[in-house]
Parts: sequence; C-alpha cells; structure tokens
Amino acid sequence: MHRSKLTAVLADVPPECFTDEVEFWAGAVGQRPVIDDADPDYAELGRPVPGMQFMVQRIGGPARFHLDIETDDIDAEVARLEAIGASRVVLLQSWWVMRDPAGLLFCVVRVQPGSDFDALATTWS
Amino acid sequence: MHRSKLTAVLADVPPECFTDEVEFWAGAVGQRPVIDDADPDYAELGRPVPGMQFMVQRIGGPARFHLDIETDDIDAEVARLEAIGASRVVLLQSWWVMRDPAGLLFCVVRVQPGSDFDALATTWS
Repeated sequence: MHRSKLTAVLADVPPECFTDEVEFWAGAVGQRPVIDDADPDYAELGRPVPGMQFMVQRIGGPARFHLDIETDDIDAEVARLEAIGASRVVLLQSWWVMRDPAGLLFCVVRVQPGSDFDALATTWS
Repeated sequence: MHRSKLTAVLADVPPECFTDEVEFWAGAVGQRPVIDDADPDYAELGRPVPGMQFMVQRIGGPARFHLDIETDDIDAEVARLEAIGASRVVLLQSWWVMRDPAGLLFCVVRVQPGSDFDALATTWS
C-alpha cells in the first residue's frame, strides 16, 4: 500500500527565456520567485493553489510544461503508472522521468517539503 | 480591480491518443472521467488538488500540456498578462488563448463552475 498525489506544474524553458519566464509567471500568479543558489536552474513560485507547486526550470531544449507526482514509494508508484500506460524514461537522482500515453513528460518524485501530502494523497492498495 | 487564479491543467492530445490518455490520467490521479456528450473533446477528471481542475482535450496537433487562468474580468486579465510579457493568440468563444514569454500556451477563461474562486483568487488593483 502506498500513496501519491499530483504536486507540481513546471514550465521548462531554454536558458534564453528563463528570466523572462520566471518574471512573467511570478507576476501572473502573484508569487515572489525563490531561486536557491545551490540549485539555480529552478525558480520556485510557491503554491498558487493549495497542494500544487509552480516552478520554472531552465532546460537545454524547447519549452514545455511538465507535471510532478509525489509519492511515499517511488518504485511502487512508477510500477503502478507503468501498468496503466506510462513508460519509464530515466531515473535521475531520486526521481523517475516518465511519459504518459501521448508522450508528455511527468516525474515521480519523493514527498516534497511543505506538501499537504498527508491530507490530500490518494492511497493505492 | 479584478481577480484571477490558476484553475486548470489540460493534457491536449491528438485524436488517436485521446482514449488512452483519458484512461491513464484518470487512473493516475484516481478520478472518474466525465465526458459531456455536448462537448466530447473534453474529459474532465475533477480536481485532483483543491482549486485545480485536470482535463484531457482532443486536439488536431501534437500533444502538449496547457494551463487555464480563470478571472472575473477577461479583458482586464488579458491586458494585465500582456503587460507583463504574454501575447494574445486568438479569442475563442468566451476565452483568450495566450502565449507566455517562452511560447507556451495558456488560456484566460471565465470563472469555472464549482471553482473555489472567491476563496483562492488574487485581487489585482
């Protein structure tokens, strides 16, 4: 038995768009961007709605949105999602990158700091 | 003075992926899909987190995610977002399609039925 929930939307953008993208979405959702010096490719824009983080990520490719699913058991959640139609792309540090049936990217990540996971997660048996 | 909030994530997919995509995301977030016979290009998957709808949309193009921002004043919100870096793409029925600074699509829509808009929206002066 494990639990999971949708936890984040990320706008992944090439380096030349990063600053403008961070400023735009910070203004659009009314949040102050936070960039950790130790992880400067991510700008965190808080939780514009309860339970859902918004981030802008600098990537080396064309712009896209992706989603993060957080879970208390990465292996079990990846296996569950694979069984219903997703495919594994790559394991990075602590998280799995996956594709949905249409090829859209999402990640399966550990329970995030400050998450409402206990209140909002779904339990899978 | 008007208000707005992030209200939805949509997975837009070509016709051949629609059924698999709906079944996958319904299972992934634990929601039963609802497709209105009058609007069969949209499958609604409820609100996996409070204040954020999830939908799958059938489109005639490559797959992508897009976001919806709901507002009580479409013209004012579109003008506000344009002033901070977005661009208008097209007005469709009651909503505007826009692009963010990296070219990612989002829509500015009316306050959605069943939304927690009054509780969660940001007021812009």
